[in-house]
Amino acid sequence: MFKKKIVNDPIYGFITIPDGTIFKLIEHPWFQRLRRIQQLGVTHLVYPGAVHTRFHHTLGAMHLMHKAIETLRSKGIEITEKEEESVKIAILLHDIGHGPLSHNLEHSIVNNISHEDMSSIFMEKLNKELDGELSLAIRIFRNKYPKKFLHQLVSSQLDVDRLDYLTRDTFFTGVTEGVVGYDRIINMMNVAGGNLVVEAKGIYSIEKFIIARRIMYWQVYLHKTVLSAMELVINIINRAKEVAANDGELFCTPSLRVFIYNNFSKIDFEKSEELVHTFSMLDDHDIMSCIKVWMSHPDYILSTLSTWLINRRLYSARLQKEPFSEQKIKQLIKKAKIKYQLSDKDVSYFVFSGEVENAIYKIVEPQQSKTTTGRINILYPDGKVADITKASDYPGAGDLDRITRKYFLCSPKGL
Amino acid sequence: MFKKKIVNDPIYGFITIPDGTIFKLIEHPWFQRLRRIQQLGVTHLVYPGAVHTRFHHTLGAMHLMHKAIETLRSKGIEITEKEEESVKIAILLHDIGHGPLSHNLEHSIVNNISHEDMSSIFMEKLNKELDGELSLAIRIFRNKYPKKFLHQLVSSQLDVDRLDYLTRDTFFTGVTEGVVGYDRIINMMNVAGGNLVVEAKGIYSIEKFIIARRIMYWQVYLHKTVLSAMELVINIINRAKEVAANDGELFCTPSLRVFIYNNFSKIDFEKSEELVHTFSMLDDHDIMSCIKVWMSHPDYILSTLSTWLINRRLYSARLQKEPFSEQKIKQLIKKAKIKYQLSDKDVSYFVFSGEVENAIYKIVEPQQSKTTTGRINILYPDGKVADITKASDYPGAGDLDRITRKYFLCSPKGL
Amino acid sequence: MFKKKIVNDPIYGFITIPDGTIFKLIEHPWFQRLRRIQQLGVTHLVYPGAVHTRFHHTLGAMHLMHKAIETLRSKGIEITEKEEESVKIAILLHDIGHGPLSHNLEHSIVNNISHEDMSSIFMEKLNKELDGELSLAIRIFRNKYPKKFLHQLVSSQLDVDRLDYLTRDTFFTGVTEGVVGYDRIINMMNVAGGNLVVEAKGIYSIEKFIIARRIMYWQVYLHKTVLSAMELVINIINRAKEVAANDGELFCTPSLRVFIYNNFSKIDFEKSEELVHTFSMLDDHDIMSCIKVWMSHPDYILSTLSTWLINRRLYSARLQKEPFSEQKIKQLIKKAKIKYQLSDKDVSYFVFSGEVENAIYKIVEPQQSKTTTGRINILYPDGKVADITKASDYPGAGDLDRITRKYFLCSPKGL
Amino acid sequence: MFKKKIVNDPIYGFITIPDGTIFKLIEHPWFQRLRRIQQLGVTHLVYPGAVHTRFHHTLGAMHLMHKAIETLRSKGIEITEKEEESVKIAILLHDIGHGPLSHNLEHSIVNNISHEDMSSIFMEKLNKELDGELSLAIRIFRNKYPKKFLHQLVSSQLDVDRLDYLTRDTFFTGVTEGVVGYDRIINMMNVAGGNLVVEAKGIYSIEKFIIARRIMYWQVYLHKTVLSAMELVINIINRAKEVAANDGELFCTPSLRVFIYNNFSKIDFEKSEELVHTFSMLDDHDIMSCIKVWMSHPDYILSTLSTWLINRRLYSARLQKEPFSEQKIKQLIKKAKIKYQLSDKDVSYFVFSGEVENAIYKIVEPQQSKTTTGRINILYPDGKVADITKASDYPGAGDLDRITRKYFLCSPKGL
Repeated sequence: MFKKKIVNDPIYGFITIPDGTIFKLIEHPWFQRLRRIQQLGVTHLVYPGAVHTRFHHTLGAMHLMHKAIETLRSKGIEITEKEEESVKIAILLHDIGHGPLSHNLEHSIVNNISHEDMSSIFMEKLNKELDGELSLAIRIFRNKYPKKFLHQLVSSQLDVDRLDYLTRDTFFTGVTEGVVGYDRIINMMNVAGGNLVVEAKGIYSIEKFIIARRIMYWQVYLHKTVLSAMELVINIINRAKEVAANDGELFCTPSLRVFIYNNFSKIDFEKSEELVHTFSMLDDHDIMSCIKVWMSHPDYILSTLSTWLINRRLYSARLQKEPFSEQKIKQLIKKAKIKYQLSDKDVSYFVFSGEVENAIYKIVEPQQSKTTTGRINILYPDGKVADITKASDYPGAGDLDRITRKYFLCSPKGL
Repeated sequence: MFKKKIVNDPIYGFITIPDGTIFKLIEHPWFQRLRRIQQLGVTHLVYPGAVHTRFHHTLGAMHLMHKAIETLRSKGIEITEKEEESVKIAILLHDIGHGPLSHNLEHSIVNNISHEDMSSIFMEKLNKELDGELSLAIRIFRNKYPKKFLHQLVSSQLDVDRLDYLTRDTFFTGVTEGVVGYDRIINMMNVAGGNLVVEAKGIYSIEKFIIARRIMYWQVYLHKTVLSAMELVINIINRAKEVAANDGELFCTPSLRVFIYNNFSKIDFEKSEELVHTFSMLDDHDIMSCIKVWMSHPDYILSTLSTWLINRRLYSARLQKEPFSEQKIKQLIKKAKIKYQLSDKDVSYFVFSGEVENAIYKIVEPQQSKTTTGRINILYPDGKVADITKASDYPGAGDLDRITRKYFLCSPKGL
Repeated sequence: MFKKKIVNDPIYGFITIPDGTIFKLIEHPWFQRLRRIQQLGVTHLVYPGAVHTRFHHTLGAMHLMHKAIETLRSKGIEITEKEEESVKIAILLHDIGHGPLSHNLEHSIVNNISHEDMSSIFMEKLNKELDGELSLAIRIFRNKYPKKFLHQLVSSQLDVDRLDYLTRDTFFTGVTEGVVGYDRIINMMNVAGGNLVVEAKGIYSIEKFIIARRIMYWQVYLHKTVLSAMELVINIINRAKEVAANDGELFCTPSLRVFIYNNFSKIDFEKSEELVHTFSMLDDHDIMSCIKVWMSHPDYILSTLSTWLINRRLYSARLQKEPFSEQKIKQLIKKAKIKYQLSDKDVSYFVFSGEVENAIYKIVEPQQSKTTTGRINILYPDGKVADITKASDYPGAGDLDRITRKYFLCSPKGL
Repeated sequence: MFKKKIVNDPIYGFITIPDGTIFKLIEHPWFQRLRRIQQLGVTHLVYPGAVHTRFHHTLGAMHLMHKAIETLRSKGIEITEKEEESVKIAILLHDIGHGPLSHNLEHSIVNNISHEDMSSIFMEKLNKELDGELSLAIRIFRNKYPKKFLHQLVSSQLDVDRLDYLTRDTFFTGVTEGVVGYDRIINMMNVAGGNLVVEAKGIYSIEKFIIARRIMYWQVYLHKTVLSAMELVINIINRAKEVAANDGELFCTPSLRVFIYNNFSKIDFEKSEELVHTFSMLDDHDIMSCIKVWMSHPDYILSTLSTWLINRRLYSARLQKEPFSEQKIKQLIKKAKIKYQLSDKDVSYFVFSGEVENAIYKIVEPQQSKTTTGRINILYPDGKVADITKASDYPGAGDLDRITRKYFLCSPKGL
C-alpha cells in the first residue's frame, strides 16, 4: 500500500510510475544511464540552467502520454490496458539509444547510425531479456500497429515527446517564450479516421505550439553560441579520432577508447552483444573527463580545442541568412593559418562555415518517413478534418512548411 | 526609513511606489476607483480567474516602465529624474478614464468619447489640482514631447501597457499560451534616431509577442462566449436607456441614473466639473447591482436580458470567417419573434450578427494616429533599423499587418 | 464528444466538470452568485491581487477532491461512483451560504447564522428542487455517513477546502510563503480505521501546511490593515442598520433593504422560501454600490465611514501581543470626540479595540464539533497512527494547538 | 552598447553581470569549473531535477546580493561602489573551493580542509593574479571589515547564499514546500548597530524561511535515500584510496590519481601552486567516469559498490530518532559477512550506521565562528532589536536552536 512509486518533477509536480514492465525498464542500467546524458548537450554553456537529462525528459513524456490516454478514453476511444502499457514503453524507450551529449555527438561517436536506430537495437535486446514483453511496444514504435494514433502519440508532428521537450527545455533554459500549452493541447486531442487529431477549438494552441518550437530552434537549439560550442565538441572528437587513426596515444576511458579507435556500422551493433554493452557504458562523463585530460595532449590542435571547451573560450560565431562570401572565409583561414601555424587541412578545425535549417512544420508524406507522421490535423465539430496549414487563418499559415536556412561561420575568438 | 511603499503583485513579486506626485496620484479617489473596474469586464464569465482590475494593471505597467527606464539608462540613454517621474505618471493615468466594465461599455455608458479622451480630461483636472505637476506627463501622453521614445513607451505597438496587460491577462485567465517574455523584451529595448527600438537579438521575442497577442485576441478577448457576454451587457444598457427615454422608471444608483437618462458629448465633460465627478463615481458595482434589480423590471426585454446575464445564460454564439447568410439570420429572427413575442424592432436584442476584426500588428502611419506609434523597429548591430515585418524571417511576416475579420451570430440559447 | 466541460484555472491548469447533478448545480443561479462574492472580502485593499471569488475557490476544491479520490482508490480504498459524486457535491456547496464579502460581513448582514448553517439551508432547498439527489451529499456534509473519511475530506483540519484556499489565496495575494504542497499532501493521503490519515513520509509537508496556514493568518487574513478595512465595512453596515432602526431613509438595493431594515434569525430562513431567495440575490455589488451612495448621506458618521472605505482612507491600526492600556484608548477616544464632535456612544465607530486569535492547529474533540474533525493523523508503515503534535519532531510541535491572541486598536488616520 | 552581459536564469529571469573584475572572475577557468560540479552531488538519484550546478547557484547569489544592496541603499545605508563590487565578489567566490560532488566528498577527496578554507586559498591566488583587486572582498569574506553587515550578507544565518540555495534547490527538486520569500526578505533587510537586521513586519517571512530550511534538510538534504547514495559514493572513494594505499592499480584520470594515491593537508595546498592547479582540474566527471570503470575492477568491494552506484541499486536505508540497537546492527553485519564473504573490517562498507543532525536555527556566538554570524535580528519600528527566537510568537520559537539528531542504518538491498 505504501509502495506506489512517485517521482518529483519540477514541471508536472509528481510523476507516477506504474508497476510491472515499466518499473522494471526504469530500473534497468540502460535506462538509468540516461541520467548521465544531458538533454541538450553543451547548451548549458549558453543557458546555464539547461542541465536536465534524457532520463527526466523520458519520464516526463511518459507522464504526458498517461494524460493523453486518459483524455482519449474519456472521449470514447478504446485503448486496452496492454496498449496503454505498450505505448508508454514506446515513449519511455524512444531515446534509449542516445549517446553522450545527445544530438551533439550523434554522428561523431558512431557514424551512420541515428539515435532512433540505436534505440531500436536496444529495444530488441531488452525485448529478448524480458521474454517478448516489449513486442507490442516495438510494433507501435515502428508504426506497424493498426491503431495508427498510438504511434502518432509517440512520434509525429505533435507527439508527447515534443510536448515534453519544449516544455522542459523552456523551463530549464528560462526562455519563457517557448512555453506551450501542453495540457490544453492534450485536452483537445481526439482520434478521427484512426489518426490523432486536434479539435478545432485548440487551433490557437497549435499555432502557438508551432511558433514556440520555431523560437526554441533559433533562440536555443540553433543559437549561434550554442552552435559554436557544439561544433567545438564535434571537432574535438573528430581530432581525437584522427590522432588515434595515426596511431597516436590518447587518454581514454575504456569504453570511449573503443569508439575513438574504431568506426562501427549499424550491422556491427546488430551482430555484437558486446558492442552494444560497450556503447551502453558511455555517457557525458567519458567525454568530458577525457577532454579535460586532452587539454595537455601533445597534439597542438587537440589540446587547444579541448582547452577552449573546458574554459569556455568558444569560437566566435556569426549566423546569417545569406551564405558567407568565399573571400571572407578565405581571409579568415589565411589569418588563422598564420596565427596558429596550421596546415591547409588542419585549419578547418579553426575556421569553418556551414548551414543549419529549420522547418517550423514539416509536412512529411507517409512514404518518406519511417517514424514520423507528417501532419497536424484539425477536427471540426462537423467531423471534417483539415491540415493546420489550411485550418489556420494566421498570415503565412500556408507557408508554415517552408524551410528557413541559415549560414554560420566560426573562427577563433580574437582572430 | 520604514515608509517605503511596496505593493505585492502575484506576477512581479513586489512593486515599489515612488514618493511624491506618484504616491499622491495613487491615493487619489479617482485612481482608487480603478480598483472597482475589472480589467476585462465580463470575461470572467468564461475565464473565472479574470477578475483582476485596472488598478493592478496600471501599477504593473508602471513597474515595467521603471524597468524599461533602468535598461535604457544603462545603455547610455539620458532620461532625467523629471522625465522618469512624468513618463511613469503618463502610464499610471493612461486608463484613468475607463468606465465601468472597461472596454465592454466604452461606447454604451457614454457615446462618442473614447477612454483615452476621458483619460485626457481627467489628467487635465488632476493637473489643475496639483498645480501643474502633470504638465510634462500630459505632453508625453499626447506625444508633444521631443523625446519621442518616452511617448512610445506609454503608447505604441510595443509599449509597457501591452507588455503588462498580455502578461497579466495570461496570468489571471490561465491561458499560458499568451505568455510574453516581458523581461527579455525590456532588456532588448534601446533608442535609435530618437525612437524606441528593439535590438536584433530580441527578434524572436518580438515575433512571440505578436503571436501571443493574436492568441489572446481569439482565445480570450474575442472568444465567442466572451463576445456573447459582452453583447448581452451592452444590450442591457441600451435597453435600459431606451426604457428611460420612454419615461420608464428604472432602479438606478444616483450616478448611473445620470448616464442612463441622458446622453452626453465630449464637450459636456470638458465644460462640467460636476459631470466628471459623477462619472468618477461610476464603477462595475453600479452596473451589476442595477442589472440584478432589473431582473424583475416590468419591461420584458430588460428583465429577460438581465436575468440571462446574472444567471449566466448567455446567448448561443457562433463565430466564423464568412458572413452569415441573410437567410439563416432571418430564420432565427422569425423563430425568436414567435417564441418571445417580439416586435420587428425589439427582436434585435435577441438575434443579431456583427463582425470583429483583429490586426496582429498594425502599421499606423503617424498622421493616422494621435497616440499610437505604428511600428516595431528592429535595431541591428551595424546601426541599421528595419520594421519587424521586414526583419523577421518568419513565414508570413510580411503579412503580419493583414487584418483578420470574423463574423458572429448570437441568438438565445435553445432557440 | 465535444461536450466535456473544462474550466481554465490559473493554478491547476484545467478543471473538468462532470456531467449530471454537478453540472446542474454549477449552472444554478445560487451557485453562479458565488461569482459575485470575493473570497477574501476587502482584503484586496491591501493585496490588490486578492480579487478571486468563492466560485473559483469552490471549483478548485472540487478539483482537489477529485485528485484525493483518485489517490485513495489507487491505494485500495473503496469509494463508489455515488459516493464520489456526493462528496464532490458536498465540497461544491460547502460555501453556498456565504453572503456578501464572505467572512467580513458574516455576522453583520444576518446575525446569529453562520455561513455553514446557511449552506445547510440552501442545500436542503436544492435537494428538494432536485428530488433528493443531494441526500447523500448532505449526510456527508453533516458527518452522518459511516465512511467518516468522506466528511473529513470536506471538513477537517486537513480538508480539500483548506488545501485550495491556502493555495489560491497565496497565488492571488502573491504571498509566496503561504504555498502548500497540495499535491504532495494529497498523494500521501490514506484511510486508517475509517479515518483520513497522512502517511508518515508526508510529515514535513504537514508541518509546512500548518506553518503556511499560520503565516497566511498573520500576513493576510489578520494583517492589521486588512483588519482595519474589515472593521470599517462592518461599522458601515452597523451604522446603516442603526440609521434604519431610527426610521432614517437610506438608498438600498431592494434585497439589501430587507436586511438593513430587519433582523432575522435562523428560524426565519428555515420557514420562508422568499427570505432565502432574497438572501440569494445579495452579493458584493449591493454592498459596494450602496456604500458609495452613502458617501453623501446626511448622517455624518455613515457618510464619513463610507467615504473612508471607498477612497481607501482606512483606520490607522495597531496590532500587538498585549492588550492596549485603558488610558491609551481613553485618550484616543477623547481626541476623536473633540475632533469629530461625537457622542459617547458614536465615538466607538471611530476608535475601538478588539482582539483576534489564531490557533495554528486546533485539536477539536468530536463532541465539540458539528462539522470539523479535529486531528491530523499520521500513519506509520507499521500501521500505527499518531496525532501530528506527537508525530512531529519540530520544536514546539507539542504546542501547535496553543492559541495565539493579538490585540488591535483602530483610530482615524491622523488623529 | 550591445555588450551588457545577461544570463538567463529560470528562477530570476535574467541575471546581469557587471563589467570589470567580476566579469574577469566569471571568465576564469577556476570559476567556469563550477559548471561541472553539481550543487547537490548525487541527490539527483532521488530528485531527478536536482542537476543544477555551483556555477548557477553562485550567479544567483550574486543577483540577490545586488538586490540586497539596492534595498539597503534605498534605506539610506551607505555602500560605496568598491564595497558593492567587493561584496559581490565575496559571494561569487564563496564556493570556489568546492570539490567534486560538492559536500558529498568534501571530506573524502581531501581530508581536513573545508570547502571554505579551500575557497580562501583560491581567493588568495586569484588576488595575486589580479594584483590585489580582491583584497577588500577577502576582508569582507573573512569578517575583517568594519562594516559587519557586508560579511553578514555573504555568510550568516540569513545570507544571500542561503536565500539562493533554498530557492534554487526547491525549484530544481520540485519540493515546493521549501519555497522562501526571498524578495520579501530582502525588501525587509536593514542595518542597525552596524549589523544586518530584518524589519519587524518581515517576521513571518523569517519564520517561514527557518521552517523551509528545516523541511529541505529532512525532505532533501538528509532524505534517507539521499544519505544512502551519499554514503555509497563516499565508501567508493574510501575503498579506492584503500586499494591505492595497498599498491593496487586503479584507472584514474590524471588529476584524480593525485588525490586517490596521496593524502594532503591544508599546508600542502598553501605551499604548492601546482597542487591547487591539480585540484582545480577535478570535477564530477572525474569521479563518475572512474567509478564506471571501477565497476569491473578486480577488487570485489570496489567493483560491487561502483556497480551499485552507477546502476542505482542504493543501500536500503532507515532513518529514525533513536539509535539502532547493537543487536540489530550485529545481526545485519553477520548476514552481510556470510552473503558477501567479507572480513570483519570490510563489512563496514556494506553495513553501517551513523547519525545526522540539523539545527533549524543555530545561534553561534561570535567566538565560535570564523565566518558565520549567529543570529537573525529583528528590528522594531521603535529601534529595538531582538533575536528571532525572542521576537517570534510561534509556539516553540524559543526552541528553534534545538538540535534534531537522527540515526541511520544502511545495508545492501535485499539482505
